[in-house]
Amino acid sequence: MRIALDAMGSDEAPGPELAGARRAVEADPALELVLVGDGVVATHDRIRVVHAAERITAADHPAQVLRGKPGSSLHVAIDLVATGRADAVVSAGNSGAVLALAKIALPLAGPSSSLRPAIVTVLPAPAGPVVLCDAGANVEPRPAALARFAAIGAAYDRIVHGRACPRVGLLANGKEPSKGTAVTREAHALLAARDGNAFRYVGYVEGSDLFTGVVDVVVTDGFTGNVVLKTCEGIAEGMFGLVRRELDATPLARLGAAIVAPALRNVAHQIDYTEVGGALLAGVARPVVIAHGRSDATAIASAIRSAATFVARDLAGRIAAALAESA
Amino acid sequence: MRIALDAMGSDEAPGPELAGARRAVEADPALELVLVGDGVVATHDRIRVVHAAERITAADHPAQVLRGKPGSSLHVAIDLVATGRADAVVSAGNSGAVLALAKIALPLAGPSSSLRPAIVTVLPAPAGPVVLCDAGANVEPRPAALARFAAIGAAYDRIVHGRACPRVGLLANGKEPSKGTAVTREAHALLAARDGNAFRYVGYVEGSDLFTGVVDVVVTDGFTGNVVLKTCEGIAEGMFGLVRRELDATPLARLGAAIVAPALRNVAHQIDYTEVGGALLAGVARPVVIAHGRSDATAIASAIRSAATFVARDLAGRIAAALAESA
Repeated sequence: MRIALDAMGSDEAPGPELAGARRAVEADPALELVLVGDGVVATHDRIRVVHAAERITAADHPAQVLRGKPGSSLHVAIDLVATGRADAVVSAGNSGAVLALAKIALPLAGPSSSLRPAIVTVLPAPAGPVVLCDAGANVEPRPAALARFAAIGAAYDRIVHGRACPRVGLLANGKEPSKGTAVTREAHALLAARDGNAFRYVGYVEGSDLFTGVVDVVVTDGFTGNVVLKTCEGIAEGMFGLVRRELDATPLARLGAAIVAPALRNVAHQIDYTEVGGALLAGVARPVVIAHGRSDATAIASAIRSAATFVARDLAGRIAAALAESA
Repeated sequence: MRIALDAMGSDEAPGPELAGARRAVEADPALELVLVGDGVVATHDRIRVVHAAERITAADHPAQVLRGKPGSSLHVAIDLVATGRADAVVSAGNSGAVLALAKIALPLAGPSSSLRPAIVTVLPAPAGPVVLCDAGANVEPRPAALARFAAIGAAYDRIVHGRACPRVGLLANGKEPSKGTAVTREAHALLAARDGNAFRYVGYVEGSDLFTGVVDVVVTDGFTGNVVLKTCEGIAEGMFGLVRRELDATPLARLGAAIVAPALRNVAHQIDYTEVGGALLAGVARPVVIAHGRSDATAIASAIRSAATFVARDLAGRIAAALAESA
């Protein structure tokens, strides 16, 4: 198992990538890593380094990335996978650029090759993980694309979380079928007709249903999905800010805080995106994992671990099969 | 000051309405209430009762509500305001029906009379309250409508929170102006041109910015606004579920939990929608407050208190003036 890591992706690159890579290989004796970047050194005998002089930034427009910067760390890392020298790629860089490059270098076979990939991410919730698709790739998808995201999300949930027939909901502004937009209403009709062995379609779900255990997979457009994902990250951090302030307000509260600190750390750990392991770019031929730009070493190591799991379970191939079947 | 309360609105009506009304008049000696409903009794000398035999349910379609059920508690309560016998109305009922009836019975004067109202709600955040508009009334608004929501949200923030020149952001899936949908990009251009004395337009904001204190007012369509609002409610409840589970896991954690309970209750109180006071239907001639269907007595009392504040500050009139000025 060999995974290519774009070492120049994260906001603080290459520090988090170097530390995260070392942690990942030390934890998994079957793992080899190829770090791609400039001024990167190997710190373990299962880490190799491939030089790349250029770096793609958040400011680079995906369309320009395709033509310009062919020597970027992201180009080289994806090319390692396209040419069979690595099994998967991880990058904490510009997600639009990752999508554009991966779609061209790692196309699906057959009629699916023209489909635009989607981003799958997992939200932690008290009743178990919830799969969100699309989390940002398709801002204004058509109804058929939303139906495709259901097939992708259900396949991910089955393969990664082991839920045999995932419950799929379509995110809307109310449960009644009269709610939603023209696009969600048409997608609702498509999904109701496709309900079957691959997944069980439960209809519209609301934002609050993300955390109540009524659904395993939530389907939405990439605009709403991105807003929901970042809202969750923001409110989790905001709430912990409020908790910290209150627990520091009186001497008694500070004493109690010292006692409950391990319990609260467990909660923080459960809702921490750095533990969730990065998002999957679904609808390409090999696993492509997009980590958060703000990733630290823990988040990078976690994204590498996810990529290894996805390779071991042939996630990309099985999602491709689910897409072909649902077409 | 006299406020009409639809006593048949909430999921558990009329219990929460009766208890909430009593609590509100006891807390405010200048307040009179008119409870509208069936089988409702006055429990205070500043509470009057008006009988209404019918009740609008969540299943009633707003368009049908207009023609059918003219004797409903919501019709009668809004009519009390339209005929000057009350200054504002509060309902925890079907928000689409509230909007449809209020738009017809309480129209704005002049050219604004044709505009569809918007829902304004307030999200609690560590750095201070954040105003969200539209929180659910306009599912697919045009760019000019989004620009109008900025004028509404800024007026609300100035009048209710006292921030002289609110910072307004447009919710999107990234900060770069190339992000968003065709509609948000056009609204972005409109808002950039209107930046001035009424508000300062800070550009696109992301979901995480709702809680970081970089913005006072967040503008979005009613689909996304509803999803964000319910996601916030859901994650807050979900996180408290996780915290409760961890604090109950060991004897030591239970001891610490007993000590920090008041501090955690303070946090729960700060993020509790029942304390926030209901949403404002903006763009009608008098204050119309929509409380959550799941409202308890605390939430109803809080919504009544909000309505009283809105009347005292002439919020509806001043939002109408801001709309006329921004047109």
